[in-house]
Amino acid sequence: MPDEPHPPLTARHRVKSYELDSFGHVNNAVYLNLFEGARNEYMLQRGLSFADFSVWKAHPIVAEAWVRYRRAAFVDDKLVILGAVENASNVSFTIRYRIEREGDGQWLAEGTTRMAFVDPEGKPTRIPQAFKEKFIESRGV
Amino acid sequence: MPDEPHPPLTARHRVKSYELDSFGHVNNAVYLNLFEGARNEYMLQRGLSFADFSVWKAHPIVAEAWVRYRRAAFVDDKLVILGAVENASNVSFTIRYRIEREGDGQWLAEGTTRMAFVDPEGKPTRIPQAFKEKFIESRGV
Amino acid sequence: MPDEPHPPLTARHRVKSYELDSFGHVNNAVYLNLFEGARNEYMLQRGLSFADFSVWKAHPIVAEAWVRYRRAAFVDDKLVILGAVENASNVSFTIRYRIEREGDGQWLAEGTTRMAFVDPEGKPTRIPQAFKEKFIESRGV
Amino acid sequence: MPDEPHPPLTARHRVKSYELDSFGHVNNAVYLNLFEGARNEYMLQRGLSFADFSVWKAHPIVAEAWVRYRRAAFVDDKLVILGAVENASNVSFTIRYRIEREGDGQWLAEGTTRMAFVDPEGKPTRIPQAFKEKFIESRGV
Repeated sequence: MPDEPHPPLTARHRVKSYELDSFGHVNNAVYLNLFEGARNEYMLQRGLSFADFSVWKAHPIVAEAWVRYRRAAFVDDKLVILGAVENASNVSFTIRYRIEREGDGQWLAEGTTRMAFVDPEGKPTRIPQAFKEKFIESRGV
Repeated sequence: MPDEPHPPLTARHRVKSYELDSFGHVNNAVYLNLFEGARNEYMLQRGLSFADFSVWKAHPIVAEAWVRYRRAAFVDDKLVILGAVENASNVSFTIRYRIEREGDGQWLAEGTTRMAFVDPEGKPTRIPQAFKEKFIESRGV
Repeated sequence: MPDEPHPPLTARHRVKSYELDSFGHVNNAVYLNLFEGARNEYMLQRGLSFADFSVWKAHPIVAEAWVRYRRAAFVDDKLVILGAVENASNVSFTIRYRIEREGDGQWLAEGTTRMAFVDPEGKPTRIPQAFKEKFIESRGV
Repeated sequence: MPDEPHPPLTARHRVKSYELDSFGHVNNAVYLNLFEGARNEYMLQRGLSFADFSVWKAHPIVAEAWVRYRRAAFVDDKLVILGAVENASNVSFTIRYRIEREGDGQWLAEGTTRMAFVDPEGKPTRIPQAFKEKFIESRGV
């Protein structure tokens, strides 16, 4: 992603006090929420919604996740979550993320989620064509 | 609050998929997070921060909370959280909230939190003067 | 509930570090999770499961919640969540809860949730008969 | 871990309905909570507590996390979280986890967290000797 100056997936988040743990920094699990929130935002930007999953009878799941925490995030921090799709096939794709703090521009975390699609019974299924075109093949605005 | 057309506390929140429960609507506990996030936002607007709590050696706690859920909130809904302080004394105050959905303007929930201040050992203490002036006595913009 | 020495709904919970906020005590919203977890546990004890909701095409929602926080809960605390049903009608019922800390027996919080049933479209519906018999009318073991 | 038949870190967790997402399975971020809860439990088993972190003026943070999701977990599932420490140095160590479902014995997820210690200002510091002896060097009961 460092060599991709305009990652298509971009979302913003202001850290809330309920996302902190007793050491005063954002809890490690919350970063997976931030990645998920960025996916929500990107779906909206690409004209997709959760209602599509019912129509397609297929929805995405996280098959694998990885996060490297570089610097702590604190209450009221304005975060930018950047992301880009990589390694897409017919059955899975990976999103690479980077979280930065606005203001000092510090790079706080990076990570990946490998995503796959399943049918309502949880069985693996091909990525729906409309999702592929709008979410995966898009190269941003 | 209906008779108070410009409640001073105003915050916005886009519903994320990780805030839903298995019935597809925002889980009941998340509404207390929304109230807390609105307090975070209002503190910033009033020039207050969590660092002040360390300086004052006193921080607010929720002593009592009440929520009435009127209509479900769904993923991607844009929520507006409105609030106003009422019944302030030297040791506690209440915030009344209303959550509306932008777009259809539906009134989704209302609630209150009664707040008190405690010292670092958890003992009740008077509300710090600076908090009183900026957070409680302010009548909004 | 104080006058009801053996509340039928009983659940246990060990406080986890991710349930704390930056002041080192359990966040206020988590108490609604504790109430929900106690309802989960009680359903199991009464021979009910979430699969029943699909069969009945009706599931419970929280219509109103109230919590009074009396003393803070800390990491590793062993909590007991006690509850009893009150004010049941054909369309709603209330559960009254009390949270105690094992060991010192301190009473940490009390609260209520008023519950109603809705159909898959979210429309209010009568409480299913099997739920009424097993969850509401049961007087405990 | 497969070649280590008795991993020292063992914890149990019953899935709650508030841990599910709208697809009816446990949300991906919750697995990092499960890992954290297992660390809480193991600390207690080894005679350690969060109060030690204040005494030592040093506490652990998650420096890196990885999760592979193999099968979905559902409400009321009884999970077993197993773990073992590996690759410990003076400044960091890794815990490898596996999550199984009791009953059918299915292997639901595996993962790792690389942990480091920081002082109250967030600066990296050596692992406290008492933590090393009790948490890291212990080979289980």
